[in-house]
Amino acid sequence: MITLSLMVDVGNLLSSLFAPIMDAPLLEAVLIQIFVVFLLARVFAEVFVRLGILSQVGEIMAGITIANLAIGGFTLAEGLGIAWHPTEPSVYHEIFEVLANLGVIFLLFTVGMETKFCDLKAVGKTSFTVAILGVIIPFVLGFGLIVAFDTFILHDPNWLVHALFMAAAMVATCIGMTARVLNEMGVMDTIESKIIVGAAVVDDILTMIVLAMVVSIFAAQQSGSGIDLIGMGSSILVAVLFVAVIMLLCSHGIPKATELKRCRLTEKGVRCQERDWPWNIDPFPLAAATCLGLSALASIIGLASIIGAFLAGMLFAEYAQERLEAKFKGINAFLVPLFFVYVGMRVQLTGFGDMILLTFVVIILAIAGKYVAGYLGVIWTDKSLGRKEANIVGIGMSPRGEVGITVAYMGLTAAAITQEMYTVVVFMSIVTAMVAPPWMARAFEGKYGRLRGTVN
Amino acid sequence: MITLSLMVDVGNLLSSLFAPIMDAPLLEAVLIQIFVVFLLARVFAEVFVRLGILSQVGEIMAGITIANLAIGGFTLAEGLGIAWHPTEPSVYHEIFEVLANLGVIFLLFTVGMETKFCDLKAVGKTSFTVAILGVIIPFVLGFGLIVAFDTFILHDPNWLVHALFMAAAMVATCIGMTARVLNEMGVMDTIESKIIVGAAVVDDILTMIVLAMVVSIFAAQQSGSGIDLIGMGSSILVAVLFVAVIMLLCSHGIPKATELKRCRLTEKGVRCQERDWPWNIDPFPLAAATCLGLSALASIIGLASIIGAFLAGMLFAEYAQERLEAKFKGINAFLVPLFFVYVGMRVQLTGFGDMILLTFVVIILAIAGKYVAGYLGVIWTDKSLGRKEANIVGIGMSPRGEVGITVAYMGLTAAAITQEMYTVVVFMSIVTAMVAPPWMARAFEGKYGRLRGTVN
Repeated sequence: MITLSLMVDVGNLLSSLFAPIMDAPLLEAVLIQIFVVFLLARVFAEVFVRLGILSQVGEIMAGITIANLAIGGFTLAEGLGIAWHPTEPSVYHEIFEVLANLGVIFLLFTVGMETKFCDLKAVGKTSFTVAILGVIIPFVLGFGLIVAFDTFILHDPNWLVHALFMAAAMVATCIGMTARVLNEMGVMDTIESKIIVGAAVVDDILTMIVLAMVVSIFAAQQSGSGIDLIGMGSSILVAVLFVAVIMLLCSHGIPKATELKRCRLTEKGVRCQERDWPWNIDPFPLAAATCLGLSALASIIGLASIIGAFLAGMLFAEYAQERLEAKFKGINAFLVPLFFVYVGMRVQLTGFGDMILLTFVVIILAIAGKYVAGYLGVIWTDKSLGRKEANIVGIGMSPRGEVGITVAYMGLTAAAITQEMYTVVVFMSIVTAMVAPPWMARAFEGKYGRLRGTVN
Repeated sequence: MITLSLMVDVGNLLSSLFAPIMDAPLLEAVLIQIFVVFLLARVFAEVFVRLGILSQVGEIMAGITIANLAIGGFTLAEGLGIAWHPTEPSVYHEIFEVLANLGVIFLLFTVGMETKFCDLKAVGKTSFTVAILGVIIPFVLGFGLIVAFDTFILHDPNWLVHALFMAAAMVATCIGMTARVLNEMGVMDTIESKIIVGAAVVDDILTMIVLAMVVSIFAAQQSGSGIDLIGMGSSILVAVLFVAVIMLLCSHGIPKATELKRCRLTEKGVRCQERDWPWNIDPFPLAAATCLGLSALASIIGLASIIGAFLAGMLFAEYAQERLEAKFKGINAFLVPLFFVYVGMRVQLTGFGDMILLTFVVIILAIAGKYVAGYLGVIWTDKSLGRKEANIVGIGMSPRGEVGITVAYMGLTAAAITQEMYTVVVFMSIVTAMVAPPWMARAFEGKYGRLRGTVN
């Protein structure tokens, strides 16, 4: 009883401590909120990096803490006024949500900017096979698992939409993280690395197409009565057309891509020689406007806004990349941590206990699906490579990252997946991102002996 | 009548065209709004730059157009849902306001980052005199004018607060613009340029102190009954203490500034040799958090948040500047245009006709005040310089820029100045920024003959 009343006192104390924020003018309150969130995100990120874990995981953990760690029944998110409430959203939460979403849009733009269309020509048959299998196998596994779970355990009639989104979230390989790890280990010039990076580039595009189709089916199902095949078909057509038009612009952009490209593998993937920015105009505002415009357009025609952002990034991938990258890095350094904190804040630990088994199975399937795809892709298409190489590629494909989380987040905000399923995906992404690097290091050492660089 | 009904039809047409934005989900609507605003800002900026005018003026003009150009009684701001309404602010307007204010905070951070404390040691007696006179004379002129205007013409009892804010807005020289123009003309290494740039650096700091005192007086007057001298005194004390503590940290920061600095004049002002970033930690998140934190703190203790942002910039001015500048440039490239558009959107042309005479007088006093200060400062303190040099410095001090506008904007949002007075300051800043460069070019040519570079 003493503990309990003490807890209540702490709650009251905290609530009175935070009260001035709510009474402050809007801009002052927002400044305080963003300051606290940004600072906590950084402290968590710094601690996690020193533990050898990705900074993004730290930022997500900061978000989980802010929204879930209750002292005296009182979370920091509530104290700051940015807590998420399903029925009555506060203006502070909406502002935070907008900043977080601008963050993910610019993040996906930079992911797109790392996916040069000319890179695709340099990607070999093995990478293509690994990428395509790496989309199909995890999608089928995820789809089957969720259908079974919804049908036999939850008896939830929304199994189709749930399964589609969850499967889509299991598809994306995290190129940024994988490339960074390969680079840190000093194995960027091995055949395995080339296959992994090439496959991850193709993977990104395939994921966007899968996501576009999933969103289309969801939209068609939402509007129509039940499953309307014609509506679905036309929605998918719109989605595919949108992607195809941008891809066409990429390959036959103005000025036309006639020059032969010299391509090489770097820490960021296959790099082709950059073309000069051909117009007498600052590329940044044009890029930012295209990013915002295509994101809005994607949203208007019923796709996820991040698809537009990703394709906008691809449009600019071959031009003025260095000048653009520096600017977008600045924006992302401020906004992307807010997105990851927001991702963590939407995780609800209360009542999550029942889902631990599902989380475990999803993680196993996520890793196994990508592993099998990578393994088979190598064995089937390149007779010169053996089990060791296939093993390395299989492991290298397994980490999911921001894209998987983003897909799940899109599903959550569209009410296409449940709160619990969203939390499952977040944990799956975190665990695969943490497990893969040391495992990959061991596999590489198994083949090449002591590595130049180190991981953990 | 035909015209009228046509106009009404156009209004209806536009209103139905824009209706989907309001019905869209929050994030989609915000994406559309930011896309349109950002694109228009850029188009206007591009046109103005090609006309030889600053891009910022173009962005402000874009804002004025968005909020004031009514077609069929229907402005673009209303169509987009971001129009400002004094009584019932829409969530879209609030989101836009937050983004704009984040923009101005990061902008003032970079202004502060260009104001190195060690620079002040390199600033000569002449620059100091020019700067101090350049604060006192325009302040006194502006204060006198508004007191007279309020007392004799408007019969407004709020003359004290009006006059204080308007006078403060007339104080700040625009360092960024002046330095850019000097650099373009290729006269950066002349004695006049050194005096102007040095004075502008001191000016920035003095402006912040003036603003802090003005805000303190305003706050004390708001809370107390009438003019409470003790309250005012303590408010000013808090303000001065806040500035002083940060300045002390700047001069005796950790690690202590013991090394001798080599300073030189560049296009961005006096530049001292950069010290290495001494800690094993990424400087950007620390800088961004400090900027947000000090802005919030300044706001909490009753100062303008931009003062905190400016001082935070000064704190980081001597460390890792290049690494930080690249990141903040990226953020600013996205957010600052939104701020200038917002500045323009708050201009109300309706009913402004009565204020044209006042605007004219304010512009004359703004130019004359800085000119006289620059002229006298040179003549009094440096016997080796004559009228030609004094003339150049006088002209070079006259452009006001973002800081003047920002002070007026703070006054407007705090209801310390009227809508009309705000509009006066915006036009004053625009006109002085447009008049000064060609005038300065002619004065330099009068002394040095044909210039290497050109302006307009």
